[in-house]
Amino acid sequence: MSTHPSKDLETFVNPNQERDYTIIIDIPEFTCLCPKTGQPDFATIKLEYQPDEKCVELKALKLYMWTFRERGAFHEAVTNEILDDLVAAVDPKWMKITMKFNVRGGIYTDVVIEHKK
Amino acid sequence: MSTHPSKDLETFVNPNQERDYTIIIDIPEFTCLCPKTGQPDFATIKLEYQPDEKCVELKALKLYMWTFRERGAFHEAVTNEILDDLVAAVDPKWMKITMKFNVRGGIYTDVVIEHKK
Amino acid sequence: MSTHPSKDLETFVNPNQERDYTIIIDIPEFTCLCPKTGQPDFATIKLEYQPDEKCVELKALKLYMWTFRERGAFHEAVTNEILDDLVAAVDPKWMKITMKFNVRGGIYTDVVIEHKK
Amino acid sequence: MSTHPSKDLETFVNPNQERDYTIIIDIPEFTCLCPKTGQPDFATIKLEYQPDEKCVELKALKLYMWTFRERGAFHEAVTNEILDDLVAAVDPKWMKITMKFNVRGGIYTDVVIEHKK
Amino acid sequence: MSTHPSKDLETFVNPNQERDYTIIIDIPEFTCLCPKTGQPDFATIKLEYQPDEKCVELKALKLYMWTFRERGAFHEAVTNEILDDLVAAVDPKWMKITMKFNVRGGIYTDVVIEHKK
Amino acid sequence: MSTHPSKDLETFVNPNQERDYTIIIDIPEFTCLCPKTGQPDFATIKLEYQPDEKCVELKALKLYMWTFRERGAFHEAVTNEILDDLVAAVDPKWMKITMKFNVRGGIYTDVVIEHKK
Amino acid sequence: MSTHPSKDLETFVNPNQERDYTIIIDIPEFTCLCPKTGQPDFATIKLEYQPDEKCVELKALKLYMWTFRERGAFHEAVTNEILDDLVAAVDPKWMKITMKFNVRGGIYTDVVIEHKK
Amino acid sequence: MSTHPSKDLETFVNPNQERDYTIIIDIPEFTCLCPKTGQPDFATIKLEYQPDEKCVELKALKLYMWTFRERGAFHEAVTNEILDDLVAAVDPKWMKITMKFNVRGGIYTDVVIEHKK
Amino acid sequence: MSTHPSKDLETFVNPNQERDYTIIIDIPEFTCLCPKTGQPDFATIKLEYQPDEKCVELKALKLYMWTFRERGAFHEAVTNEILDDLVAAVDPKWMKITMKFNVRGGIYTDVVIEHKK
Amino acid sequence: MSTHPSKDLETFVNPNQERDYTIIIDIPEFTCLCPKTGQPDFATIKLEYQPDEKCVELKALKLYMWTFRERGAFHEAVTNEILDDLVAAVDPKWMKITMKFNVRGGIYTDVVIEHKK
Repeated sequence: MSTHPSKDLETFVNPNQERDYTIIIDIPEFTCLCPKTGQPDFATIKLEYQPDEKCVELKALKLYMWTFRERGAFHEAVTNEILDDLVAAVDPKWMKITMKFNVRGGIYTDVVIEHKK
Repeated sequence: MSTHPSKDLETFVNPNQERDYTIIIDIPEFTCLCPKTGQPDFATIKLEYQPDEKCVELKALKLYMWTFRERGAFHEAVTNEILDDLVAAVDPKWMKITMKFNVRGGIYTDVVIEHKK
Repeated sequence: MSTHPSKDLETFVNPNQERDYTIIIDIPEFTCLCPKTGQPDFATIKLEYQPDEKCVELKALKLYMWTFRERGAFHEAVTNEILDDLVAAVDPKWMKITMKFNVRGGIYTDVVIEHKK
Repeated sequence: MSTHPSKDLETFVNPNQERDYTIIIDIPEFTCLCPKTGQPDFATIKLEYQPDEKCVELKALKLYMWTFRERGAFHEAVTNEILDDLVAAVDPKWMKITMKFNVRGGIYTDVVIEHKK
Repeated sequence: MSTHPSKDLETFVNPNQERDYTIIIDIPEFTCLCPKTGQPDFATIKLEYQPDEKCVELKALKLYMWTFRERGAFHEAVTNEILDDLVAAVDPKWMKITMKFNVRGGIYTDVVIEHKK
Repeated sequence: MSTHPSKDLETFVNPNQERDYTIIIDIPEFTCLCPKTGQPDFATIKLEYQPDEKCVELKALKLYMWTFRERGAFHEAVTNEILDDLVAAVDPKWMKITMKFNVRGGIYTDVVIEHKK
Repeated sequence: MSTHPSKDLETFVNPNQERDYTIIIDIPEFTCLCPKTGQPDFATIKLEYQPDEKCVELKALKLYMWTFRERGAFHEAVTNEILDDLVAAVDPKWMKITMKFNVRGGIYTDVVIEHKK
Repeated sequence: MSTHPSKDLETFVNPNQERDYTIIIDIPEFTCLCPKTGQPDFATIKLEYQPDEKCVELKALKLYMWTFRERGAFHEAVTNEILDDLVAAVDPKWMKITMKFNVRGGIYTDVVIEHKK
Repeated sequence: MSTHPSKDLETFVNPNQERDYTIIIDIPEFTCLCPKTGQPDFATIKLEYQPDEKCVELKALKLYMWTFRERGAFHEAVTNEILDDLVAAVDPKWMKITMKFNVRGGIYTDVVIEHKK
Repeated sequence: MSTHPSKDLETFVNPNQERDYTIIIDIPEFTCLCPKTGQPDFATIKLEYQPDEKCVELKALKLYMWTFRERGAFHEAVTNEILDDLVAAVDPKWMKITMKFNVRGGIYTDVVIEHKK
């Protein structure tokens, strides 16, 4: 489980808890460092979730993403960690994260993870 | 439930109530205000529904959308409110709304809600 | 039911009645008149069907579409009428019509209807 | 059933008959003649199949397609005929053909047929 | 089964074995030789898999792909071989390979194979 | 010169006659009839001009375009006629019209004409 | 000349006045009102300029654009006014504005104006 | 110079000989045979010209293009021949032909020729 | 002039100094910090130049771009600085830089600068 | 100057030496090796030329491009070499080569060279 210092992701009360609905968030500006070489990695993130009692606050989400700027992070591990942190903060009915990493060595990698309550 | 003054959305009689069919309406010019900062927000709306006895009149729908121009509205709340108002006016067999909000703080948000009778 | 004078849509014998298959027809040049204002409306039509004993003849279909050029027609009603006329002429196993109307008052409308035998 | 002289479509042994897999072939350059008017018709063909014991040889497939260049062929009939010939030659577990014919009289036509063993 | 010398595809431990998730890898620069004519063939590869205990290391994957540069390889056979090698190395819960070969003789070929544990 | 009854195209005073500037108008919904066959023709029109003392009023322009709906018109002649009518009404420093006619007999035609004062 | 209250557009000192260079600013979210009907108009703005001693500050530019939200404004006049205000504030070597207005009555209008010192 | 039997390309009188203007014709369905191998070649043709006294008739142009269906023709030679035939028939002020041939051996070829009176 | 520590951009000898030619380099992954708010800025860079005696080495260019990751930088100033550093290192006959910054406050900014020897 | 063994690029006589015209050739499948690391490089080539007395034969051009498959080649040098070889073989009035190399280290490079007689 993540020991990330910024996982206190601010939330607000879901304004309509009577029905299921979906929130889709696109974050085109994620960057971290490669743990092996120290070189920058870039990714875009798509986050989809059905809120239960809480929704994630967008400014807090942006600040959370910035905390990865100086950190080394493997593709598969960081996608799992971000989903873990968001699930811990928002406790959604359902959540899916898609991270699309930029080309490295001529190869593109996406990691896609779903969480169900 | 919405206390919006314009929810008297004009309708007309569904010309074919014997079969199920789908009406898809794209509204590319929605704007409201951010309740926190007062700055303008822009969105596009896709509305899909199966009419029962009534269809929504397009000019009334356009006027209804304009009433948000001076109002503060959170993304999740306003999408729920618009769906509530449309369901109250049209009483459809099924309805789905997708609001795509323009980028704010480098982040794009869509809200997608379905209603079933 | 339609009282349209041109509903005698010419057909030909389905050349392979032993198997189910699908015919998809795109008609990008439909125009009629708005019954309220008299101004021209434009639409594209996608027609999909599984023929039973008959297929619709393309030239007759084109001529049929031209008969709407001088007529007033509401979006939802005209889509239902065209499907009715085609079902009456072709008697398909399955048929679906999608009419995409051009923007009016800043709003785009599609109407989608399926018929099953 | 087709009496086409070129239906001896050459095949080769499926190199992996232990698992199901799919081969997708796009042929963008099909042309035949309209049986009514004699004018050229153009189409693109997508062929998808799950091989059983045989795969179709690509050069033979290309030569087979050329044999339609001088022939009159109705849209629905020729799509059925090509599928019949390919099924006879390859005997696949599953095969699907999609022919997209170029615009004629302002109208586009696709024909889609599936075969299952 | 493949007798390919490079099938020792390096892997690393799946960092989250508690949940199912999907890794999607796009390799746009595959080239081999046509076994009949000796002329170069080019393809793009999409690899999708659910890791079990192991993930494939990207640099090793790149080196593995380069080993085909001097080899003759039929479309259907090489797609099966690459999937076999990857399944042997990674032992995934599920894996799918899509190879899209460049046009030859005016015809495009894709081969799509799925493996399930 | 055109004897068209609707050439009284309404204009308004150019709000800034001190500098040269360009107005670009796209009209995607033009239709007339083929003078030979009577069948409908469809086109899109791009109009570009530098106003002198007058600008063309958009609603009047729309009504002017509708007057061609029932008229037979050859591609080259109608483009010249529309430009003549607009030059007569607006008396611009410079004007250019581009009419893109839909496919007929498998062939697309554009006509492009410039007028300079 | 504009009597607009917000024309005090904040600027900052051009950081490199020794060479000519170009700044291109895209503002996709402009809205004002139609002076005739009171209905909302939407436009995108592209601003291109060569700074002399001053550059326009982006936040001030955004606030300036918001001041049109409640104002009636004709397409041609408002484009001239915005260019006048920007030229007055920034005093550039060269400046060009392109306003692309959304479809009204089925017609799209762009206005393009250049200023040279 | 061409000895082609179909060069009697029908024309009609240019309806506006007082001004220069441009006609652009797109023909997406050209096919001929490779003179070396006999295999079909496909191309798209763009024809642009400024008419003098004559314009080319579209149906005649289509029939002219069909005459190449059974003929062997090298890329460079056939483009020159078609331009020669059209110049002979239409005697334009200016004419340009662009032929885009489909991929052969993994290589795409365009031939572009201009004629000025 | 820049006091940037990394301006020692490695170069190699232009392999063909007898003719003028152009090198175009696209760098899609530039990031720095906003000097006002400290928040990350992202940009893509297009660099075009005619080499004289030297060409810039790509790996050194990549490392140079990474040095901006922790630095505050205004859009206009940083584009001028990067061009200055590259001109100092490469001494090209001609060089042009285009930096496209991601949306901030709903506004996109590009800065384009040319240098000629 | 190139010492490449395959520069005997076969040509044929320009079929129309009386007028200037342009031949454009797209070669999407070029590959060579990086001289530093030995790893494969991929590029697409666009060749444009005005023939004088000779045109390059396409099959010979394809074979010529294959000779780089096993060779180390720097971006700038190989583009110059290919242009030199083609100029030597074809002796055109004008020739331009554009090589677009695939991403390496997150950076894309094009090299563009023109030759005039």
